[in-house]
Amino acid sequence: MNANDHTSDRDGRRDWGDKLTIRALSEVDHVKVHGRTTARRDPLALFWTGSAVEFNAKGSELWVELEADYDSYEPWISILINSAPVGRQMVTAGRHWVCIFRGMNADVVKNVRIVKDVQAMSDDGGHSLKVHAVRFDGEFLPIEDKPLKLEFIGDSITSGEGAIGAIAELDWIPMWFSAVDNYACRTATALNADYRTLSQSGWGVLTSWDNNPRRNLPDCYEQVCGPLSGAKNEELGALEPHDFASWQPDVIVVNLGTNDNGAFHNAAWTDEATGRTYKQRLNEDGSFNEDDLGAFEAAACRFLAKLRKNNPQARIVWAYGMLGYAMLPAIYRAVDAYSKASGDKKVSVFQLSNMTEATRGARSHPGALAHAKAAEELTDYLKGILV
Amino acid sequence: MNANDHTSDRDGRRDWGDKLTIRALSEVDHVKVHGRTTARRDPLALFWTGSAVEFNAKGSELWVELEADYDSYEPWISILINSAPVGRQMVTAGRHWVCIFRGMNADVVKNVRIVKDVQAMSDDGGHSLKVHAVRFDGEFLPIEDKPLKLEFIGDSITSGEGAIGAIAELDWIPMWFSAVDNYACRTATALNADYRTLSQSGWGVLTSWDNNPRRNLPDCYEQVCGPLSGAKNEELGALEPHDFASWQPDVIVVNLGTNDNGAFHNAAWTDEATGRTYKQRLNEDGSFNEDDLGAFEAAACRFLAKLRKNNPQARIVWAYGMLGYAMLPAIYRAVDAYSKASGDKKVSVFQLSNMTEATRGARSHPGALAHAKAAEELTDYLKGILV
Amino acid sequence: MNANDHTSDRDGRRDWGDKLTIRALSEVDHVKVHGRTTARRDPLALFWTGSAVEFNAKGSELWVELEADYDSYEPWISILINSAPVGRQMVTAGRHWVCIFRGMNADVVKNVRIVKDVQAMSDDGGHSLKVHAVRFDGEFLPIEDKPLKLEFIGDSITSGEGAIGAIAELDWIPMWFSAVDNYACRTATALNADYRTLSQSGWGVLTSWDNNPRRNLPDCYEQVCGPLSGAKNEELGALEPHDFASWQPDVIVVNLGTNDNGAFHNAAWTDEATGRTYKQRLNEDGSFNEDDLGAFEAAACRFLAKLRKNNPQARIVWAYGMLGYAMLPAIYRAVDAYSKASGDKKVSVFQLSNMTEATRGARSHPGALAHAKAAEELTDYLKGILV
Amino acid sequence: MNANDHTSDRDGRRDWGDKLTIRALSEVDHVKVHGRTTARRDPLALFWTGSAVEFNAKGSELWVELEADYDSYEPWISILINSAPVGRQMVTAGRHWVCIFRGMNADVVKNVRIVKDVQAMSDDGGHSLKVHAVRFDGEFLPIEDKPLKLEFIGDSITSGEGAIGAIAELDWIPMWFSAVDNYACRTATALNADYRTLSQSGWGVLTSWDNNPRRNLPDCYEQVCGPLSGAKNEELGALEPHDFASWQPDVIVVNLGTNDNGAFHNAAWTDEATGRTYKQRLNEDGSFNEDDLGAFEAAACRFLAKLRKNNPQARIVWAYGMLGYAMLPAIYRAVDAYSKASGDKKVSVFQLSNMTEATRGARSHPGALAHAKAAEELTDYLKGILV
Repeated sequence: MNANDHTSDRDGRRDWGDKLTIRALSEVDHVKVHGRTTARRDPLALFWTGSAVEFNAKGSELWVELEADYDSYEPWISILINSAPVGRQMVTAGRHWVCIFRGMNADVVKNVRIVKDVQAMSDDGGHSLKVHAVRFDGEFLPIEDKPLKLEFIGDSITSGEGAIGAIAELDWIPMWFSAVDNYACRTATALNADYRTLSQSGWGVLTSWDNNPRRNLPDCYEQVCGPLSGAKNEELGALEPHDFASWQPDVIVVNLGTNDNGAFHNAAWTDEATGRTYKQRLNEDGSFNEDDLGAFEAAACRFLAKLRKNNPQARIVWAYGMLGYAMLPAIYRAVDAYSKASGDKKVSVFQLSNMTEATRGARSHPGALAHAKAAEELTDYLKGILV
Repeated sequence: MNANDHTSDRDGRRDWGDKLTIRALSEVDHVKVHGRTTARRDPLALFWTGSAVEFNAKGSELWVELEADYDSYEPWISILINSAPVGRQMVTAGRHWVCIFRGMNADVVKNVRIVKDVQAMSDDGGHSLKVHAVRFDGEFLPIEDKPLKLEFIGDSITSGEGAIGAIAELDWIPMWFSAVDNYACRTATALNADYRTLSQSGWGVLTSWDNNPRRNLPDCYEQVCGPLSGAKNEELGALEPHDFASWQPDVIVVNLGTNDNGAFHNAAWTDEATGRTYKQRLNEDGSFNEDDLGAFEAAACRFLAKLRKNNPQARIVWAYGMLGYAMLPAIYRAVDAYSKASGDKKVSVFQLSNMTEATRGARSHPGALAHAKAAEELTDYLKGILV
Repeated sequence: MNANDHTSDRDGRRDWGDKLTIRALSEVDHVKVHGRTTARRDPLALFWTGSAVEFNAKGSELWVELEADYDSYEPWISILINSAPVGRQMVTAGRHWVCIFRGMNADVVKNVRIVKDVQAMSDDGGHSLKVHAVRFDGEFLPIEDKPLKLEFIGDSITSGEGAIGAIAELDWIPMWFSAVDNYACRTATALNADYRTLSQSGWGVLTSWDNNPRRNLPDCYEQVCGPLSGAKNEELGALEPHDFASWQPDVIVVNLGTNDNGAFHNAAWTDEATGRTYKQRLNEDGSFNEDDLGAFEAAACRFLAKLRKNNPQARIVWAYGMLGYAMLPAIYRAVDAYSKASGDKKVSVFQLSNMTEATRGARSHPGALAHAKAAEELTDYLKGILV
Repeated sequence: MNANDHTSDRDGRRDWGDKLTIRALSEVDHVKVHGRTTARRDPLALFWTGSAVEFNAKGSELWVELEADYDSYEPWISILINSAPVGRQMVTAGRHWVCIFRGMNADVVKNVRIVKDVQAMSDDGGHSLKVHAVRFDGEFLPIEDKPLKLEFIGDSITSGEGAIGAIAELDWIPMWFSAVDNYACRTATALNADYRTLSQSGWGVLTSWDNNPRRNLPDCYEQVCGPLSGAKNEELGALEPHDFASWQPDVIVVNLGTNDNGAFHNAAWTDEATGRTYKQRLNEDGSFNEDDLGAFEAAACRFLAKLRKNNPQARIVWAYGMLGYAMLPAIYRAVDAYSKASGDKKVSVFQLSNMTEATRGARSHPGALAHAKAAEELTDYLKGILV
């Protein structure tokens, strides 16, 4: 048996009736792009988890051409039709025409969303997901903006790590990430909001879980997708400055601190370039070293100032707690300090319920039920402050 | 832009390290096939909804080569890893290598199930889904049989029609069918059972919803997949006699009658070949015509006898009710009559709860919540009779 | 210490301000009496479980004078204020003033219901609960009838036996009966209906659980409260013919059969007067003796005819199943036979879900959760047939 | 009709068989007293909500003699048999024999708890509930202590105000208070803990909701039941110093701050004796006046020190949030400040979920569902810190 025999060159082409027309995404009149990205549409790069293209498609059959690339971690997508998740699949390397729907009533408008189900992959310089074109037999109609805009900034929790898959799973692979089952998507849905997510597993405010001071969200907040590296991503515009004027959130939810806590409990990290070693220390009695905790608080404070600078009107909510409450006092102090220093009163802290044994997901991370609970709590809270 | 440009010839081939070996499915030592099919494995045809291949795969990367064909209704698959659903996708026409997992710990055994998510398509002679081969870098381990075997015989409800998708959906297309979210799969999971499903949307015991007397499950019960037609399916063995000795269920659940009720409320059907017209009639007061209802009961009676002939030991449960209770008295009478005539006491009737507004799914069919409720009820009932 | 010292003669009399006026119940202009009873109000006898007096009381303080009597089984009451259960207490022998509320805003109307929480006690000729008078500082306003009337006829399940109390409880005492937590009350509430209950623990259609043929509900259906005996109850009017014209239900729910099934599995009963022995027999293989099962069916048939004679317009629903489904086929046959013989099409059968380990209550009877589930199912069903 | 006619002098005395023996509570060998009270047992005064007497009673019939007194607010009791709530009733003024159970198997031990269902009534100097004696035909067996002791300190939330009764209720009366449905009791049950509650509706840390600085829990923490006043309560020992050595909790849950927040939003309070006026002020922009908020924080700080002084080993958890989160930052600051000043690390803050429209109870207070949710959250949290 020969591998070269196995891929049909038809690739579903039987489905291509005469009416199916290919259009580059850049030529599509009505497409809504979700997630922070550049202005480029030829192709469109989807960087962050939850990034998506959305169509109101009046026609019977729709395909989308995607291109995936990676060295280690492949992208996955979820497909939502009229807000219901109906498909989820790995996108293997290369360019693929993916059929979104076929055989439907041509006179009915379908709302379609193709969502990047995995986070930006800072550890894989080759990872990318691009949308090139559509193949369609109908017309695209305008898509209204939701009345509310939310921005989520977080770590593995916000990346939906473990929100899908069996509890026993231990491998760190894209399959266990979900942009659909996580609390951010659920909260946005419950509040009828558009939303964007900036998240990196293992990263924190000051350092990552393993004390690496470069792996923090604040430093790359002003770039399109700062955690990425490599020539390919640079070429895609990931490292360009983000145009904050283009999309101003009503609420920014920061769900960080879990990995900053981890740093206190894990080994030191040594910068091989400089030989310098970094470590958030514990006291002998297991409590946090005050200086190191103070460094976290100072970093949180600075991050709040950076958020405010770029988002003058947004309510900022630091929501924390699904994997332990250890940093909550420090987060309260940081918010207090920032608020006192700046006079900014539109910032608050909200505790999210811990995952329990009953709501555990894959990789010891919150499962879908834990995300559902967090979303319900956060939704109630945001409703309260948005009145 | 030229369509021919768009499909990469790489097809994820970067992923094919030297260790990935292609084996025809027929050469795989340990594979468990779910669902009624022929003995052929080169390729394996998956006919009925819920049909599947299952592996215990110890290795880091696994691909499966599928071939889909159809004139109208494409197949879909769901992928379960360690029993958790992680992927669901349309399989477009042609042969495709689908990556099931990659990048996983090579020393850990993964239980993998690739499930046909849509029913056998009696209205599309060209519809088929075949499994040709696997590409794997590890070894396959044996898969134990579950201690219990269930067989489900039903219509659209058992095919999971509407168990996925938005409530607003009206198109009759494969996308809204689910073999994972339906009550049959959930019941089997809850009882730790292997199971098979024989189901056809719109079909009944005596006639289909539109009075067509050929569209009934009993007549084709003894074939591998009798609802299918066309030379292709015949060539795949769909119409061959089923070897009942190869798989004897402990329980047969019959969920039929919903479309027989429909026949009373829909227009007559005329056999164009003979000019004969068929119609289950209502009385003027809206009640069932007694003769026609009797014909249904007689058909149900005969079906029970046929089930018993082929499954001497099975408990037979007629489970009915998710879309109305109208035929329940007639079903009770039929079971009574069969039981009295045969002396067979291993047959009973169980009422399933009606779908409510809160549990409605797509196409006015039971949604995932309705299936979950039915599964919970049926599981409790089967536990009771299997003691 | 002397027992005579212990009861204060004040009996809360400090609360009796000048404004509190005593009125015999017979003199109260607006009182709604629930439950089948006589026309007498001086005093009012509450016989069946769920029987109640209801007031719309505009005033600040309300007391009710109750009189309890019994040889073995004392009555209990529940108190509902604006439909919320707020009190539940034993009523010990004698006449007592029970304070229903005090200290409330005199200008607001309170809907008040004082409910007999235990069934008529056929084994205790001395058991009675009477309402004599009220003590009130305000005015009683009219109470509207609900748009729907339900009648429930049943056994211990309908009496709410075990719906309150710990799972471990085994004593047959009034404390474990609830007229509030049972499915009948919950169904009536969900449907916004007035309702009456006729129920006796251990009784059936043909015989009781222990084969006593006198302990059946059909024989006493046409009396006010036929299960009762003794001179005291006779004097209260329990054995008088019921005036069906006074209250015609829209739906009659019959939940009987559980004890008829029990009779097959329990010892024979001998009528000491005649020496005759009664026993519903099992075959050697554990199945029902056909003649005896036929006798049950005939009795069910006759009961349906009696119900119809007295309630010409009511929908009759035989709802069965919370403690096993064994008699369901026989019930279906009986309903079929009755319906065929009479032409009556307003009668149907509805299966109620079995209690599970998770919903078990006291005395191995359905607990509050099982009643809640049954009520939800029955409510959905009744909504369907009442459209 | 004459009021004097209506109370039977039998008072259930028919039930008093020869075997029923009256014993003063002080003479009962095994009785467990719950709730902070004095050492006196002749009679025993139950002050705080959730205070109770508990018996392991092996016998068939048990009565308890209670004495209630009040000017405005009457006591209520709940009765639990084998941990299931089976009775709840108002106790009107005077001495009453209340039958707890009768007719039970004399050989079985019943665990019985008679619980004061309403808080200590600081506004009613005449309010008291005393337990004088029991009447029993069996023997009392020892009652083991639970492995964990919890102390709850709170306001109306902890008093279970509104946890029972219809949403529409507005009157401030004892009927709407529940010691059984509230989060404190539920948490203790879930953790298998003994517990005590000190709570007063409307009271806070620094002032009450209406700015009265005397209505705070800290000032009276070291007395048996400091909120009470009047000669009668003094005579009962309410104002005596509490003997902390007699009962040391493992965890103290402080749920205060809700009324301190209220003080900022309500009118000033004037001390009529001194003419001095008290008011927690808001700034013009609606934010808290910094000095006044600081006064709250200082009071919270001092309260923590007082708790620690009297409970050297207890974990202290400030749990707050069921009626808004406004004071949470200030509570965090106070706990921080106390912890820093004292070096005490066994104190933490835990946010409880806000009541929602779906969980609202009577008097705009958390209903039973809100208490259940809070208890579930708090239980998870306490499990985490008690590991």
